[in-house]
Amino acid sequence: MFDLNKPQIMELFEFNEAEKLIQNAYIASAEGNVQTAEVVHLGFPEENGDCHIKSGHINGTASYVIKIASGFYDNPSKGLPSSNGMMLAFSAKTGETVAILRDEGWLTDMRTAIGGALATRALARADATKILIIGTGIQARFQAICLAKLMPERVLNFRVWGRNFGAAQTAANELLSQELTAKAVLELEDEVRSADIIITTTPAVLPLFEDGLVRTGTHVTAIGADSPGKQELPVGLVTSASLRVCDLLRQSLNHGEFQAAKLADPSLDVTELGHILSGMHPGRRSKDDITVVDLTGIAAQDIGITQAIIDAAASKKT
Amino acid sequence: MFDLNKPQIMELFEFNEAEKLIQNAYIASAEGNVQTAEVVHLGFPEENGDCHIKSGHINGTASYVIKIASGFYDNPSKGLPSSNGMMLAFSAKTGETVAILRDEGWLTDMRTAIGGALATRALARADATKILIIGTGIQARFQAICLAKLMPERVLNFRVWGRNFGAAQTAANELLSQELTAKAVLELEDEVRSADIIITTTPAVLPLFEDGLVRTGTHVTAIGADSPGKQELPVGLVTSASLRVCDLLRQSLNHGEFQAAKLADPSLDVTELGHILSGMHPGRRSKDDITVVDLTGIAAQDIGITQAIIDAAASKKT
Repeated sequence: MFDLNKPQIMELFEFNEAEKLIQNAYIASAEGNVQTAEVVHLGFPEENGDCHIKSGHINGTASYVIKIASGFYDNPSKGLPSSNGMMLAFSAKTGETVAILRDEGWLTDMRTAIGGALATRALARADATKILIIGTGIQARFQAICLAKLMPERVLNFRVWGRNFGAAQTAANELLSQELTAKAVLELEDEVRSADIIITTTPAVLPLFEDGLVRTGTHVTAIGADSPGKQELPVGLVTSASLRVCDLLRQSLNHGEFQAAKLADPSLDVTELGHILSGMHPGRRSKDDITVVDLTGIAAQDIGITQAIIDAAASKKT
Repeated sequence: MFDLNKPQIMELFEFNEAEKLIQNAYIASAEGNVQTAEVVHLGFPEENGDCHIKSGHINGTASYVIKIASGFYDNPSKGLPSSNGMMLAFSAKTGETVAILRDEGWLTDMRTAIGGALATRALARADATKILIIGTGIQARFQAICLAKLMPERVLNFRVWGRNFGAAQTAANELLSQELTAKAVLELEDEVRSADIIITTTPAVLPLFEDGLVRTGTHVTAIGADSPGKQELPVGLVTSASLRVCDLLRQSLNHGEFQAAKLADPSLDVTELGHILSGMHPGRRSKDDITVVDLTGIAAQDIGITQAIIDAAASKKT
């Protein structure tokens, strides 16, 4: 049994292994080979906190995974990170504990970023290099970092916008320190108009910008809307896009961007990311397509990244 | 943060503290002061295994609790126990991990037995001493042991029946070794007719005995039926009882004995155990009442027993 804390997990983590297992997990999910339990939500409104539990099993694999992740959004004022949690793996043959990964939310942040980056790479134009990141938190940074790892051959130009310009500067500086090209920007509308790729990473409950700004050929990955009522994109952008992609249909249609869009147009077609990644469903068909991905986060990602850590720990042990 | 394994947990465990906290948790639950999430089920039919996750928080208390419990019923043939799992406690103010209790299912077994024993004590006749235990597993033994602890003033006479007489003898011998009066019995019907208290602890999906056998004045506690489709008691016994008590209405009406009984009589009245334990709802009204309790297991019990271990660990540390 592996019982690992956050520094141990971070040391064992290998991006390429995790990326591969998460990609396979999305494909397994879309192909109906993942048992995904309903997400549990516990709320602590007096503390501005919540906790959710995601759990599942990829058929035929050795372990099932239970992920506990909390956000207590007043923690930073107490000098504590907002995120907390752990990932747990158990034998799918005996129920015995295989791993306790006390990652404090780090693996969730990383698998979320890898999921977004896989989707962005799959659907953005081959010549897309100008990337607008909206939001300044962990996901803003991790999405940029993971995308750069997935596109080592491109010179990416990151622009970071947040409601607080100072926070955008801090985020951009962190990307610079990772040897990425990055700059904090002030005018959101101008940036939306000229971006090749837009990645939204905010807890917004109303669209971040107006409809009609996004130019043809742009790809949009929306990460923020992960529970009912949240929304980052204008409905018109979603309904008029050439392609709409989610991670898990039954979850995305009441959790994220497609919730509002489906109300506007119940016949709206949405494809699961796994079918794009496997090639079962075509992705971008032309350089003029606007493509929109909305990810709400699924247990399959947790299973993938947990397995990557278990594999790394096992190979180190032997 | 406390990270404790099963032997450490068993050493810290104090029956009276756990009993008190579990009783308070039932009362809090009945009074609407527990946030109880929906139970998660994962199934592994090829391995004859399943896992469930229960989670919740008693309003105003320091920790919320997530309990993972699995049963892989072919494990004994591999030399492993069927049960596995852990209880996890997190700060309800910050989400930080408070305790990882790697109890391997022991705390679940114990809180289940304490719940049953609290219910049995609350509703059995004051002069009830002849107790029929149906089933021979862990719960058969733990229910007897916990009931004896809760009724130290009575000389209890336990009779154990199982489909396999040898297993009943083994269970009875274990009770004898705990200085209880116990005997394995062969004739189920005779025992059902003459018992003061009947405790059922089996995975049955059909009634264990016919309707009409239980005499007036008897109390019945049914423990086994903890998921849809399971049933230990004849419907007529349940519908004709003077009092029906469950742990959590919304769960019991589709999980346990009351599922079948409600189909027979939709107007059936069922009371939550917490209201009996608090005195809000009268219990037994006469020596001739037949009273029936069906417990399906609730997160409030997990919270209570986890808090008992945390308290004990904290007081030992200081």
